[in-house]
Amino acid sequence: MDPITALLDDVLAEIAPQDAGAPADYIPELAAADPERLAFAVVGPHGRVRAVGDDAAEFTIQSISKPFVLALALQEQGRDRVLSRVGVEPSGEPFNAISLEAGTGRPANPMINAGAIAVSSLVPGDDVDERTARVVETLSAFAGRSLWVDEAVYASESATGDRNRALAHLLRSHDVLEGGVETAVETYFRQCAVIVTVRDLAVMAATLAFGGVNPVTRRRVIDGPVARDVLSIMGSCGMYDFSGEWMLRVGLPAKSGVSGGLLAVAPSQFGVAAFSPRLDEHGNTVRGGLVVETLSERFGMHLLEPHESVAVPAVAIERAPGGGGVIRLGGELGFAGTERIVAILRDFADGLPAGATLTVDATGLGASHPGAVVALRAEFETMPAGVVLVV
Amino acid sequence: MDPITALLDDVLAEIAPQDAGAPADYIPELAAADPERLAFAVVGPHGRVRAVGDDAAEFTIQSISKPFVLALALQEQGRDRVLSRVGVEPSGEPFNAISLEAGTGRPANPMINAGAIAVSSLVPGDDVDERTARVVETLSAFAGRSLWVDEAVYASESATGDRNRALAHLLRSHDVLEGGVETAVETYFRQCAVIVTVRDLAVMAATLAFGGVNPVTRRRVIDGPVARDVLSIMGSCGMYDFSGEWMLRVGLPAKSGVSGGLLAVAPSQFGVAAFSPRLDEHGNTVRGGLVVETLSERFGMHLLEPHESVAVPAVAIERAPGGGGVIRLGGELGFAGTERIVAILRDFADGLPAGATLTVDATGLGASHPGAVVALRAEFETMPAGVVLVV
Amino acid sequence: MDPITALLDDVLAEIAPQDAGAPADYIPELAAADPERLAFAVVGPHGRVRAVGDDAAEFTIQSISKPFVLALALQEQGRDRVLSRVGVEPSGEPFNAISLEAGTGRPANPMINAGAIAVSSLVPGDDVDERTARVVETLSAFAGRSLWVDEAVYASESATGDRNRALAHLLRSHDVLEGGVETAVETYFRQCAVIVTVRDLAVMAATLAFGGVNPVTRRRVIDGPVARDVLSIMGSCGMYDFSGEWMLRVGLPAKSGVSGGLLAVAPSQFGVAAFSPRLDEHGNTVRGGLVVETLSERFGMHLLEPHESVAVPAVAIERAPGGGGVIRLGGELGFAGTERIVAILRDFADGLPAGATLTVDATGLGASHPGAVVALRAEFETMPAGVVLVV
Amino acid sequence: MDPITALLDDVLAEIAPQDAGAPADYIPELAAADPERLAFAVVGPHGRVRAVGDDAAEFTIQSISKPFVLALALQEQGRDRVLSRVGVEPSGEPFNAISLEAGTGRPANPMINAGAIAVSSLVPGDDVDERTARVVETLSAFAGRSLWVDEAVYASESATGDRNRALAHLLRSHDVLEGGVETAVETYFRQCAVIVTVRDLAVMAATLAFGGVNPVTRRRVIDGPVARDVLSIMGSCGMYDFSGEWMLRVGLPAKSGVSGGLLAVAPSQFGVAAFSPRLDEHGNTVRGGLVVETLSERFGMHLLEPHESVAVPAVAIERAPGGGGVIRLGGELGFAGTERIVAILRDFADGLPAGATLTVDATGLGASHPGAVVALRAEFETMPAGVVLVV
Repeated sequence: MDPITALLDDVLAEIAPQDAGAPADYIPELAAADPERLAFAVVGPHGRVRAVGDDAAEFTIQSISKPFVLALALQEQGRDRVLSRVGVEPSGEPFNAISLEAGTGRPANPMINAGAIAVSSLVPGDDVDERTARVVETLSAFAGRSLWVDEAVYASESATGDRNRALAHLLRSHDVLEGGVETAVETYFRQCAVIVTVRDLAVMAATLAFGGVNPVTRRRVIDGPVARDVLSIMGSCGMYDFSGEWMLRVGLPAKSGVSGGLLAVAPSQFGVAAFSPRLDEHGNTVRGGLVVETLSERFGMHLLEPHESVAVPAVAIERAPGGGGVIRLGGELGFAGTERIVAILRDFADGLPAGATLTVDATGLGASHPGAVVALRAEFETMPAGVVLVV
Repeated sequence: MDPITALLDDVLAEIAPQDAGAPADYIPELAAADPERLAFAVVGPHGRVRAVGDDAAEFTIQSISKPFVLALALQEQGRDRVLSRVGVEPSGEPFNAISLEAGTGRPANPMINAGAIAVSSLVPGDDVDERTARVVETLSAFAGRSLWVDEAVYASESATGDRNRALAHLLRSHDVLEGGVETAVETYFRQCAVIVTVRDLAVMAATLAFGGVNPVTRRRVIDGPVARDVLSIMGSCGMYDFSGEWMLRVGLPAKSGVSGGLLAVAPSQFGVAAFSPRLDEHGNTVRGGLVVETLSERFGMHLLEPHESVAVPAVAIERAPGGGGVIRLGGELGFAGTERIVAILRDFADGLPAGATLTVDATGLGASHPGAVVALRAEFETMPAGVVLVV
Repeated sequence: MDPITALLDDVLAEIAPQDAGAPADYIPELAAADPERLAFAVVGPHGRVRAVGDDAAEFTIQSISKPFVLALALQEQGRDRVLSRVGVEPSGEPFNAISLEAGTGRPANPMINAGAIAVSSLVPGDDVDERTARVVETLSAFAGRSLWVDEAVYASESATGDRNRALAHLLRSHDVLEGGVETAVETYFRQCAVIVTVRDLAVMAATLAFGGVNPVTRRRVIDGPVARDVLSIMGSCGMYDFSGEWMLRVGLPAKSGVSGGLLAVAPSQFGVAAFSPRLDEHGNTVRGGLVVETLSERFGMHLLEPHESVAVPAVAIERAPGGGGVIRLGGELGFAGTERIVAILRDFADGLPAGATLTVDATGLGASHPGAVVALRAEFETMPAGVVLVV
Repeated sequence: MDPITALLDDVLAEIAPQDAGAPADYIPELAAADPERLAFAVVGPHGRVRAVGDDAAEFTIQSISKPFVLALALQEQGRDRVLSRVGVEPSGEPFNAISLEAGTGRPANPMINAGAIAVSSLVPGDDVDERTARVVETLSAFAGRSLWVDEAVYASESATGDRNRALAHLLRSHDVLEGGVETAVETYFRQCAVIVTVRDLAVMAATLAFGGVNPVTRRRVIDGPVARDVLSIMGSCGMYDFSGEWMLRVGLPAKSGVSGGLLAVAPSQFGVAAFSPRLDEHGNTVRGGLVVETLSERFGMHLLEPHESVAVPAVAIERAPGGGGVIRLGGELGFAGTERIVAILRDFADGLPAGATLTVDATGLGASHPGAVVALRAEFETMPAGVVLVV
């Protein structure tokens, strides 16, 4: 066992004894879940899946499908069109709240059922089958393998789905549902009944963590801005009326489902997923939440934790014997990095002997932020002769 | 003008013509504000304040005091005690909403007035004067200079403060207010009437950005975990019922006030503040919001933007002629960094000739995440002889 | 023209010039209504219909069907069963509010759409056709002639009925809907599309006024207690979120519909109905409301107006030459009447000469309230010899 | 024991064993109430008070003061001014709900605390003492004896009155409170602490039943229209979120208080009051409610019960030998009565021999409804010669 997997195994062992909560019971398929099941998995930038516990256990994705179908809708329809049908404000209310915006009738956000149904109505396709195919294909691309719908769970959800049908009719009465009620609702029921394992969810989360590129298959599934939008909305609204406390304690965008799944995203770092069927009063998996919270703490992944590496892009200085030299810039240039580099450059340039050359090699910079590059270029215009920028 | 200030100036010029919105008018002192005023300021890790526009204009801090008094309460009373009096969930409602949690009577969060008053009641001190002194002292430490209360604005706020008094009485009826109604409310009115400039607010924001250490005075104002908690809550709730959309579009924890101020925090990068009295329908400054949004875009500061530098801690490899060498680790070691370094080390160690030595110098690592260090140490136990870790 | 009709005509002339409000426009059939139409009709205990204005104009009954379908449900299912599906509390909210009781999911009352749909689901019948037939038969019995459904209006209502379908699905999700959603909703759409005139509505109102007996056909349509229950609920909830002010100003149970109809009931006195398509912001007909308010004032029909006749049942005293005589009781004996009669009897009996006889003839009493009769009988047991009660 | 008192005693004996509910406990004075206490009293038009059970037990009037202070405000300030500060719509919410109307800030109605405080702020007087004196004087006039404030209860209410102070500050922030918060709230706390017995409450109720004239003292306390307005509002809102069900089951305007008192009004018939400290979940006295419900049933007092006597004013016909005669009208002339009399007159006049005279003596009519009199006069204009109306 590699050291990272070993570390995950320790976390699993710590949390396994917790037995608070109970599985969802509104349909027989969920009520029959083995409450002892526990698994989690992490996927980093190189796409290696590390999993511990019951990582082969299959369960329905349920509400965790919501951010991925949202990603599909954003990719296909654009942000403006999606936002004309659904808001992005947390509602402070449970997952099945009605929460339609006064005036527009838009559901508060895409993570509550009403919003997710509005989003599902934006999936391209002429009928339920075409749309379901499109959804399954997208979820599969995120997971890096072919997923499928559990027809028994789907049938149960559809048979007891009066509240969701009510939400869809309300949306339609406000003209925020695209197409017919049944098309939207049946697509939604099917997307919730897709079967996954905790390994799948971790890969899906990692695809969001790395800007829309699946780190296992190396395929781009969605554009970078779409991934960022989805993570923003998960950050605000993903854990229902526990979203604020989750942000306080864990600090990672996350999404849970009633079957006991949970995924979270540390942008540029990893995707993580957990599975344990016992739920708390918000409908979130108890042990799954603890797993992610512990992992976030152990690796200091809270989004609002200050990180020294963010502030200090790699700078390597090779001084030449005659007083000049080469400054190689690496990493990524944000505001703090620009400020720091400008200070170093000024310092260096001020002491540059006549005739000496200072070459600034920016080819190793990982990303170009327009503002930072403008500042850097502007800085060079004021530099003494002999200072050369290579980009 | 240095290139960064020049860049800020460009942003100012772009946004200045916007004239939507209107100043707050519920007290004469706010209604009298010159609506044309516009300023903003940025403070990075080295504490240099760059400001453009009317950066000397003074205005009352209003609701922007809320996160800093929250910081004081968290520092003095601890997170658990504070959370027993106020929640951290966005309410989806305006700043003056009642939004008390059923059962407990806790206000939804510390950024709405009800929550801020509950927090103000936790400020240590025997009476309003002692508490006000403590609040002003804290705000001053965040700003790096001595601030004071505008007594005329305070008197107007107090004279028209029936809604806030109502909130305080409601809190007291639920036993979530510490001490008397007048003590809490008068402290709150005074904290809102502290005079600041946009430069002050930018320094205050930067103090949160750098883990509670004021980058200008180099003094620690609050502990790192308190700064993180405050930023988490600002991230979820700081922009009232626009918080979700702000997170989507801007991606930085922020707080606005009715006098037209706004500050935002890019953790480890900078604090930024803007001032422009015209407000939108959520009570947020129109041009101030655009300034911060533009800056976040230009520097790629959205929290949920993937950043390459986060994923790649600096690694410098010096190969020795005999096949060994030195690997110097720099930056910060998160999950992705650990994974990358372990891969490099394995690769290197596998090819290490008998007798050669590979020294891994981890002394340059900026922060120790327990999980990462455990993983790294564990990795070394399985390394062949000749691989040495220096921490 | 008889004097009462003349009086109605005066009221019509007074109110006709009012032109505030606008017809409903959510379906073409309602939007096309001639806004100038104005009619009203009154029906007293003898079943004579007095009508003025456009009394032959036909319109759809809409929400005015609700109290009559409620009457059918109460008659067939009993009060307890109906109340297990719907409450009787005013909600302070508009007609299409969701207003489901926490815990039970019961709609607030049968006059809002959600409650009316719950009630329609209790109409006996195996399918929509059977139930519609039953509803039309009941409405016809109330009106005293055969009514029918306007299929074009029904089709429009059904086509745009998403909000009502939403309500029905919500009810079903709470197990307060009997049978399927479509059966309930289609029955409801059809009951709303029954064609009536203002004369029909006045007869329907009068049937409720006279304890469930149609004063025109002399047929009992529903039992007396059912009529009382329906009037009680109309009194509390019939005018939506204007019910309290209506009770204050007019003081009669009433029900309005979006096509511009309105009926009101003065128990034991008359039924009244008005028709004028322009609606106010509560969805109540503007001129129809004024007609009923004026009529209530002119005839002193406010339920909470004290009435001398109520307090004084008819008493006729025939003194016999020898000192005795006959006391004939008429009218109805309530509390105040009992008290008065007992005082008269005592007075008379005290002065009764030996050997004289006082006969109390109670055969003319219109109704027997158990309490009053007990009190009267008890009184006789303490009377001197010579006092005889004939019942 | 007179037969009516005997009947009350029977009701008392039936209901006494009920032991559901519990006394209010938010202040020590209420928690200390003897839960076994039970009393009730009835007062009819002649002002005789019939009381059974613990009719000398004293308790604080609490919310039962609300309709009487409302009567004072209506009498002094007029209906329009009162309605500009408080609505008359039931809120479907508990007594201490906030329920302010969007836009205006008016409390929903004067029976919830917020509305009652708004009403108390309209009591004339320069300070709390003057206003309290005025309130006590009014309550005393309704009760027919001098009442006083229990200072211990008042002090407890004031000490724990944060929620009511919150409501008052909210009202003031919406400009619907007249004068200062403390003046309004302290007046309100004192009005609630007035000591009464069940006999007092029954006389107070009877004063409303008989149009504002106290039937014991024979003094007019308020004008008739004010009494009607108060009864209308009690009918809609008096029993909080049980008002609709109370109207269904009992059918009489009523008001309850947390000390266990309850009064109800049968217009023109009687006032009734009950006292029993155990309360149900709506805050209404359990046994008190049963007493009034039973009494309403026994005497058929439900407002929406059809009453024959209402429909039939007394008509006495004395036929003269020559074919004419005298028709004497008695009682009160409403719509149904007018219709009946017109029919009789027509019939008689049609058969009137030439030269004969029919005198219609309307001097015994108890009340003149403008509409009825107009109709009657109009009728006479079409009568043959020989028919004479005496009014």
